[in-house]
Amino acid sequence: MQFTAAQIAMIINGKVEGNPDALVSSFGKIEEAQAGQLSFLANPKYEEYLYRTKASLVIINDSQELKEPVNATLIRVADAYSAFATLLSKYQEMATQKLTGIQEPSYISKSAKVGQQVFIGAFSYLGENVVLGNNVKIFPNVFLGDNVKINDNTIIHPGVKIYHDCVIGKNVTIHAGTVVGSDGFGFAPQADGSFKKVPQIGNVVVEDFVEIGANATIDRATIGSTIIKSGAKLDNLIQVAHNVEVGNNTVIAAQAGVSGSTKIGNNVMIGGQAGIVGHIQIADGSKINAQSGVSKSIKTPNAAVTGSPAFEYTSALRSQAVSRKLPDLEKRIKELEQLVKQLLTEKISE
Amino acid sequence: MQFTAAQIAMIINGKVEGNPDALVSSFGKIEEAQAGQLSFLANPKYEEYLYRTKASLVIINDSQELKEPVNATLIRVADAYSAFATLLSKYQEMATQKLTGIQEPSYISKSAKVGQQVFIGAFSYLGENVVLGNNVKIFPNVFLGDNVKINDNTIIHPGVKIYHDCVIGKNVTIHAGTVVGSDGFGFAPQADGSFKKVPQIGNVVVEDFVEIGANATIDRATIGSTIIKSGAKLDNLIQVAHNVEVGNNTVIAAQAGVSGSTKIGNNVMIGGQAGIVGHIQIADGSKINAQSGVSKSIKTPNAAVTGSPAFEYTSALRSQAVSRKLPDLEKRIKELEQLVKQLLTEKISE
Amino acid sequence: MQFTAAQIAMIINGKVEGNPDALVSSFGKIEEAQAGQLSFLANPKYEEYLYRTKASLVIINDSQELKEPVNATLIRVADAYSAFATLLSKYQEMATQKLTGIQEPSYISKSAKVGQQVFIGAFSYLGENVVLGNNVKIFPNVFLGDNVKINDNTIIHPGVKIYHDCVIGKNVTIHAGTVVGSDGFGFAPQADGSFKKVPQIGNVVVEDFVEIGANATIDRATIGSTIIKSGAKLDNLIQVAHNVEVGNNTVIAAQAGVSGSTKIGNNVMIGGQAGIVGHIQIADGSKINAQSGVSKSIKTPNAAVTGSPAFEYTSALRSQAVSRKLPDLEKRIKELEQLVKQLLTEKISE
Repeated sequence: MQFTAAQIAMIINGKVEGNPDALVSSFGKIEEAQAGQLSFLANPKYEEYLYRTKASLVIINDSQELKEPVNATLIRVADAYSAFATLLSKYQEMATQKLTGIQEPSYISKSAKVGQQVFIGAFSYLGENVVLGNNVKIFPNVFLGDNVKINDNTIIHPGVKIYHDCVIGKNVTIHAGTVVGSDGFGFAPQADGSFKKVPQIGNVVVEDFVEIGANATIDRATIGSTIIKSGAKLDNLIQVAHNVEVGNNTVIAAQAGVSGSTKIGNNVMIGGQAGIVGHIQIADGSKINAQSGVSKSIKTPNAAVTGSPAFEYTSALRSQAVSRKLPDLEKRIKELEQLVKQLLTEKISE
Repeated sequence: MQFTAAQIAMIINGKVEGNPDALVSSFGKIEEAQAGQLSFLANPKYEEYLYRTKASLVIINDSQELKEPVNATLIRVADAYSAFATLLSKYQEMATQKLTGIQEPSYISKSAKVGQQVFIGAFSYLGENVVLGNNVKIFPNVFLGDNVKINDNTIIHPGVKIYHDCVIGKNVTIHAGTVVGSDGFGFAPQADGSFKKVPQIGNVVVEDFVEIGANATIDRATIGSTIIKSGAKLDNLIQVAHNVEVGNNTVIAAQAGVSGSTKIGNNVMIGGQAGIVGHIQIADGSKINAQSGVSKSIKTPNAAVTGSPAFEYTSALRSQAVSRKLPDLEKRIKELEQLVKQLLTEKISE
Repeated sequence: MQFTAAQIAMIINGKVEGNPDALVSSFGKIEEAQAGQLSFLANPKYEEYLYRTKASLVIINDSQELKEPVNATLIRVADAYSAFATLLSKYQEMATQKLTGIQEPSYISKSAKVGQQVFIGAFSYLGENVVLGNNVKIFPNVFLGDNVKINDNTIIHPGVKIYHDCVIGKNVTIHAGTVVGSDGFGFAPQADGSFKKVPQIGNVVVEDFVEIGANATIDRATIGSTIIKSGAKLDNLIQVAHNVEVGNNTVIAAQAGVSGSTKIGNNVMIGGQAGIVGHIQIADGSKINAQSGVSKSIKTPNAAVTGSPAFEYTSALRSQAVSRKLPDLEKRIKELEQLVKQLLTEKISE
């Protein structure tokens, strides 16, 4: 499959600069692309490659200024990254063979209900009363416990385990190995030092257009629901504890963890390996830096925090900068002490 | 199934305040519960909801004082959280259909031995000489390597992988996706910069009444055993390295990690995302704060530490508090230097 | 199977001190070993046990001095740890029954190609055009997506999921539950606050002699390849994001994470729970301490860093040491301020 620059510009509503007949047949990163490949420039860090790339065609932002001559044909659009994503999506739709049908052996309980155009991979397990909407794709080795409901167009990758009574929305993607609905970590301490398990009888609700990465864990609620709201994006190896709520379009990077009953607002961004304690609120639009440890509620929307324990971003950075100079500050305090001692001594001796 | 306040008070040995005939049929969180639901109050943070809840029945601590009138009927007990857990357990026992029998297809080697009242889910694998005690529940897609032994009443959730020769005690619960007995991370550095694998020929022993969360990893010992002692509770995504020992009733929160050969005492509490280096000892009753990095042995029982590297809790908190003022301290040192310089100059000019 | 000290000395090219006919039949740690067991001493921390061990035979370094009499027969070699590893390897080869053949049920697509002496465990899935080299061992419950290629002598443990188009080298070991080739975390922010998925059409290439621990995640590249180079060793629960490169013989400890497009050099050592931001370079031989947060490129080879954010090791340690004294430093500044104020006041009053 080959496309001309003009054809691609039409798909992404862009403007060609250069040869409208330039041909491309695959994708490449701007720093590695070869002749016949299509690339893009969005991150200014990579601008130098624009002037040296071997790509035949490069999508750039309308606002991109050219400081040197460019060999490639260019297509200008409002948002190069987004336009490139659109092309990759179309490519993937064309390249991906439509998955449908039921592979054998699989285990589908008699009470399970399955929609149209569904795919169920080998060694997948559908418990009692499982319901799959239309166009749902269940890859091999997936476990769906009793009463699990999965809505239209959702993709469950291999080896995902979803415990009983959990509900997954439409157009959701869950990557391999992720566990949804495992018991929350609730134990009542006993007088003899042992712990008594608190049964976890709630569930997990994952709303529409959510994506969850690989080997993540989302615990079921003690009572009620752990909720991942519409449009949230969760990366690999993330921990979401019981009764947590993750807001709409909130993004959580890999290996971050959220403790029990914490409510995270909408459009929050949480960096990798960050941790958030239980029973707090995180306001809409908060930005939590990677490896931060958030120990109390963030009440002001759109605030940024960093550090462990986490504080307001700019002041935390200022403290971190001074902390590099601590050995020097200690030395200066010692010198001051000597000078002041000397001044005091001289005063007495006067 | 409906219960009266009087019936529930009898089960949990409590005292009714209000209408002993108040009826409940399900559970609800105090802030969300509706008429006909049973709730509880243990965390003082939630006390305000006691005066506004729509729950028909609320379990509270004996010591709870009432600052406003309460609509719900109350049941007073010594420990409301524990009593509520008891009720949830009874509910779960009644609601959960007894799982028994062997689903097909499954793979059970001829040399495997299986006790009474066992459940083996579809696509589960029992290697050579596997032994399952009575009342063991193996969910679908579980792998049990050769010579694995699982004792009575233990529940292995879907997709758990237990390598050969590991031993799991009685009344243990292991959640989905967890790996027990993978090779410890042992490599001998070679002169050319490469690494030679050190075979890991030990095993993992998980004692009775242990609970392990989802997608955790417990490595087998190089020689001997990695041991999780009786009553320990491990949360999701935890790493336990080779030859580690975790003491009785020790609790480890999500995403924490323990490096090789470290011995953790009894009744230790380890916060989420904490890390502990290898080859050290952690005394009984230690409290390790979330995200701490413990780099040396904790020798005094019941000590608390925080920070990375971790130090004694109170002094670490005091240092953290001052570190917020570092930019101000630096400024004050500069001012002092100028004043002292001025004093010295004047002295000379005198 | 029993061996004499003389036989073992021959295998590892060592020199016997004591009884060449001493018999051993199993392995033990020096602090726990019993009569009839073989042990070793490499870590000087354990030297005291050399004089008290019940092991019949102990392998020690040529350079080991004896401060007290030793009961065990000794074998001296240049590198005791490496020699012991050699013996364990030979033991494991002898003890492990040769795994070959195809267990039923398994799912092997008609277009899959399988080499000689291959093992395919029950409930494993080989998609279209999967290629397995000679002597490859696929444990049960493994998923291999379309076009996956796995080269000679590689071992894939139970429940591993490898997405379509990924390539695994020779003599690789991947432990249970690990996911290779899940989608990179790429989303283009939209004007309404939502995110549009950027399709991830690249793959993962794992080169020869790599070992990857349990429940790790290695994301496929957006375009091109995420690459784990020859001889690299990755521990459990590690996150490797899209388009990352991990260099030859680089070692990454458990729960560490590397963000997108970062290039890690050769012979780098990364401690547990460390995090590395995206789009940076880490020079060959870098040492990154556990829990560090590396936020910018490390350009000088063989440098060591620690802390979050990470700085040069020695100076970071010095700052950390002073930070313990912060409450004291603050007090000293206050005292200086008072003294200086007093001096100034006296000056004015003079």
